Amino acid sequence: MNSVPIRVVGLSGSLRKASYNSAALRAAQALAPEGMVIETAAIGDLPHYDDNLWVAGSPPEVQRLRAQLAAADAILFVTPEYNYSIPGVLKNAIDWASRPPEQPFNDKPVAIMGASGGLLGTARAQYQLRQMLVFLNAHPINKPEVMIGHAGQKFDEAGNLTDEQTKQFIRDLLQSLAAWTRRLRAPPAPRR
Amino acid sequence: MNSVPIRVVGLSGSLRKASYNSAALRAAQALAPEGMVIETAAIGDLPHYDDNLWVAGSPPEVQRLRAQLAAADAILFVTPEYNYSIPGVLKNAIDWASRPPEQPFNDKPVAIMGASGGLLGTARAQYQLRQMLVFLNAHPINKPEVMIGHAGQKFDEAGNLTDEQTKQFIRDLLQSLAAWTRRLRAPPAPRR
Amino acid sequence: MNSVPIRVVGLSGSLRKASYNSAALRAAQALAPEGMVIETAAIGDLPHYDDNLWVAGSPPEVQRLRAQLAAADAILFVTPEYNYSIPGVLKNAIDWASRPPEQPFNDKPVAIMGASGGLLGTARAQYQLRQMLVFLNAHPINKPEVMIGHAGQKFDEAGNLTDEQTKQFIRDLLQSLAAWTRRLRAPPAPRR
Amino acid sequence: MNSVPIRVVGLSGSLRKASYNSAALRAAQALAPEGMVIETAAIGDLPHYDDNLWVAGSPPEVQRLRAQLAAADAILFVTPEYNYSIPGVLKNAIDWASRPPEQPFNDKPVAIMGASGGLLGTARAQYQLRQMLVFLNAHPINKPEVMIGHAGQKFDEAGNLTDEQTKQFIRDLLQSLAAWTRRLRAPPAPRR
Repeated sequence: MNSVPIRVVGLSGSLRKASYNSAALRAAQALAPEGMVIETAAIGDLPHYDDNLWVAGSPPEVQRLRAQLAAADAILFVTPEYNYSIPGVLKNAIDWASRPPEQPFNDKPVAIMGASGGLLGTARAQYQLRQMLVFLNAHPINKPEVMIGHAGQKFDEAGNLTDEQTKQFIRDLLQSLAAWTRRLRAPPAPRR
Repeated sequence: MNSVPIRVVGLSGSLRKASYNSAALRAAQALAPEGMVIETAAIGDLPHYDDNLWVAGSPPEVQRLRAQLAAADAILFVTPEYNYSIPGVLKNAIDWASRPPEQPFNDKPVAIMGASGGLLGTARAQYQLRQMLVFLNAHPINKPEVMIGHAGQKFDEAGNLTDEQTKQFIRDLLQSLAAWTRRLRAPPAPRR
Repeated sequence: MNSVPIRVVGLSGSLRKASYNSAALRAAQALAPEGMVIETAAIGDLPHYDDNLWVAGSPPEVQRLRAQLAAADAILFVTPEYNYSIPGVLKNAIDWASRPPEQPFNDKPVAIMGASGGLLGTARAQYQLRQMLVFLNAHPINKPEVMIGHAGQKFDEAGNLTDEQTKQFIRDLLQSLAAWTRRLRAPPAPRR
Repeated sequence: MNSVPIRVVGLSGSLRKASYNSAALRAAQALAPEGMVIETAAIGDLPHYDDNLWVAGSPPEVQRLRAQLAAADAILFVTPEYNYSIPGVLKNAIDWASRPPEQPFNDKPVAIMGASGGLLGTARAQYQLRQMLVFLNAHPINKPEVMIGHAGQKFDEAGNLTDEQTKQFIRDLLQSLAAWTRRLRAPPAPRR
């Protein structure tokens, strides 16, 4: 059981080419512990959620995202903070993905991190996201909370994470996600 | 001062053609008190917010929205609740509108309402939106909180609001918004 | 493993003698599934949290509460909503219980319910409590969310829960808590 | 109107003798702009809120607090963060003060600040408090948000605020509160 690989889908909430959050997600891919593979999912090509579109049949970009999330063992959100919440584009991806029949966040382990140029480092966005995850019946890990403040000092110009402490926070987050994922998928012990 | 008309821009968070929220916004337009005019703004044609687009110069749809909001005396949000928050498409409009240099929500009076098919009627989305308004330095009214639950029983098939109690809630909300707008724009009395 | 009894400590956030929330907690005790026992903990006799008191050695009431929580397999919060959050007296109990060295909520399964005379039924308090549980590294179940509105119609004058639908919600909550508790305590499967 | 003094009641959420938050409140008293006087209110001697006590007639400590708040022109909350929210003892004071008939927070201007030994400096507690203020129909200022992190480096051993930047933040907060209070109490201009 513990040796079964963990497939994680990572979502970056920023579309900016030189985004610190996309860079943090790439860093996470490189820092993933043995037995964990992190792939990324695109969210910038989804249309705005519209019930009429959904009823007519979800567009192919949505179907691709939903299939990718459904196949994942765990989800990693990497989100900037816009206006004290997550970006609209990331919320839109959640809005599409959450529609019936299958709901791919259901019962999934989740980890959250975020980067910002300022001090608070996306704390406010992360708690709003956690409220959304209650509806989605996902299971976010609580610790560590990875909030990368002053991101401009922690990534180089090419978007490589250079700050060792931040690397360790990300490693700890992913180790915690791996342990939580294994704990949640352990088969219930037989009734005696 | 009190006789100066109040121009409100109303934003519906739903793109669905038969949306209860868009219907509630239309109802608000009809129920506006004397001296208040409510126009609506389109948000469905904005691209996803992308810093690179913004740096390159905001698209015309964004410029139109920003100008419309900047010219308003007050803002009316009419929002469904998706995943315990506001829809991505509405958040995206806020993300675009909030970018420098001018920030059109700054110091603006705001009213919030929402409709949903269920019982809780968008309460959770409204509190998340209120947190965003702290960053935006807007001034939302506290009372009444208009949360239209069981919306399917309160609008007819053509999208007309038929429930008298809900009409009165909306009238009260708009009266409260008008009074708040006048109170906030009163010139400070001269120092004596 | 599954046959090991689950000891739950239930905390009511109300001190009122005829409290709907204390009544709901008593109902939960009677409705607990086989293999689950729910005891209650008193919080009304704790002093206000004061760091100086804590440094001097926690009062006996605090020690009793902490020992009771530490010995529990899971926690059940039953909370009214005061001013859109949990009551101060319940927060005070959490503040005392959460102090080092041992932190008795750590890694514990948690369930939440609440009763109110109004319509919304403690929704806002429950989401604020969930944010506190992130700090406490507890693991609240997401579903069902038991928010007992119009409580005056669901309990008789003696404080007995008479509403069958509400009884079923509570049964479902406790079943869900039992399953979650067993899932979280299952030993990790051996690495193969 | 502008020359009428502004009487502020300040509430510290901490009972600790050497509390950074009580020290920040004392600093605010000294830094108050001309025309503003800040008095403090005691909250540590209130009993836990209990509906039965309230029905029997509020205890004298409660009556004193309510009268003090009712007479104030504005309220200043100075709160630590315990478990990602405000302390129970502060919430308890709000719970008592908010009971009918008169509700002394109603329509009052409010400012919020907080100090903590850590990095985030009470951000999470402040947003939870803001949600409570919606119910209370108070009007908190949005800017500046004063979150004093690493408080141990900003106060001396005697509890004097020594950090110049923090002093300026507090001055700005109080200036903003004074302007907001004057703006809200300006008589509506006559209808023309």
